[in-house]
Amino acid sequence: MAPITFDNPAVQAYILYSAILAVKLLALGPITGFTRMAKGTFASPEDAKLLKGKVKTDETVERIRRAHLNDLENIPAFWILGVLYLTTGPNVVWASLLFKMYTAARVSHTIFYTIIAAQPFRGLSWMIAFVIMLYMAVHVILQNITAL
Amino acid sequence: MAPITFDNPAVQAYILYSAILAVKLLALGPITGFTRMAKGTFASPEDAKLLKGKVKTDETVERIRRAHLNDLENIPAFWILGVLYLTTGPNVVWASLLFKMYTAARVSHTIFYTIIAAQPFRGLSWMIAFVIMLYMAVHVILQNITAL
Amino acid sequence: MAPITFDNPAVQAYILYSAILAVKLLALGPITGFTRMAKGTFASPEDAKLLKGKVKTDETVERIRRAHLNDLENIPAFWILGVLYLTTGPNVVWASLLFKMYTAARVSHTIFYTIIAAQPFRGLSWMIAFVIMLYMAVHVILQNITAL
Repeated sequence: MAPITFDNPAVQAYILYSAILAVKLLALGPITGFTRMAKGTFASPEDAKLLKGKVKTDETVERIRRAHLNDLENIPAFWILGVLYLTTGPNVVWASLLFKMYTAARVSHTIFYTIIAAQPFRGLSWMIAFVIMLYMAVHVILQNITAL
Repeated sequence: MAPITFDNPAVQAYILYSAILAVKLLALGPITGFTRMAKGTFASPEDAKLLKGKVKTDETVERIRRAHLNDLENIPAFWILGVLYLTTGPNVVWASLLFKMYTAARVSHTIFYTIIAAQPFRGLSWMIAFVIMLYMAVHVILQNITAL
Repeated sequence: MAPITFDNPAVQAYILYSAILAVKLLALGPITGFTRMAKGTFASPEDAKLLKGKVKTDETVERIRRAHLNDLENIPAFWILGVLYLTTGPNVVWASLLFKMYTAARVSHTIFYTIIAAQPFRGLSWMIAFVIMLYMAVHVILQNITAL
């Protein structure tokens, strides 16, 4: 197997895009919080009391929460599959491109869920990211199948 | 501490089972999607419009979503604890067996949640995977306790 | 870039606190389960049948589940950002302190959500952990920006 060294541009791309994806995922936390404040709708009574709102669900908040949950269902899987894929010694340009496309697809997914509610664009964004993960997983599994 | 080298069979087992677990977790995304289509029940109005269904909760969909959320509560913790456990230099056969048992337990958990709603088998599957994670965590913590 | 070696105290601190955070996150699983049993309220009919309760939502259970979901939104992002931050070659004492503060903030968050429902303390705990993650992410992104 290929050693993972920090002077490998694909490793640098993995590090960069993983950090960008973390910021993207994390951003949905304060976005949910600010939307709750704007709408005056909170999940816990102590929050409602502090910020003079009500314990209530709101469709705008729920939409952001669905985008957030979808990130949780996908981005941590990328973090692990990306680094495992690097252990298979992929072509540096190709691997970097996959990481970049994955990141673009997940950013698009969030935009098409929270800013413009646009189908089938949200579905397509999700699918591109999903196929990239499956592709990486298949390579990792085939390379290590003898360990079964 | 033991260096993590790719010719170590326990490292290969970690890589293989982590990728299999990623595929297992990811699979619940499209399974939720296809079940929503079959039932005609969606979370967002633009999805309902595109696929000629309604915005509605459905118990079959919710059951799959609970299995998915349970995966999110457990599998990312395995990804990190597994690799940290490898840094403690465990017995290669034993570590590989733990990774294999963990994967089998999580696959069983999903089957007993979504295909056959069978208790106490789902609970037992969850518990086996949970105990393996605690066992690995205790080893990792004890080995690094001086860094507290 | 700095190589990640196990005799680096910041690496040991990352390993230790990542494992402690995994245990903290995982603990909310059985805490939810035991609270469901105490309240007799379950999410799935087979659980209600086995444990002689009802399928019902309960505010105490929902509060623990919100704490759990907040962990899922934050702790896996720490696991990846922490190790990526180590690749930037940070000061050992400073990095170890950040990991320790992050862990303390997340433990406080759980306490102020589930044991004492206390605002603004829960919000402040969340924010300290959040700022530490953003700080690490910015360092990682700047160090690898040429890979864009």
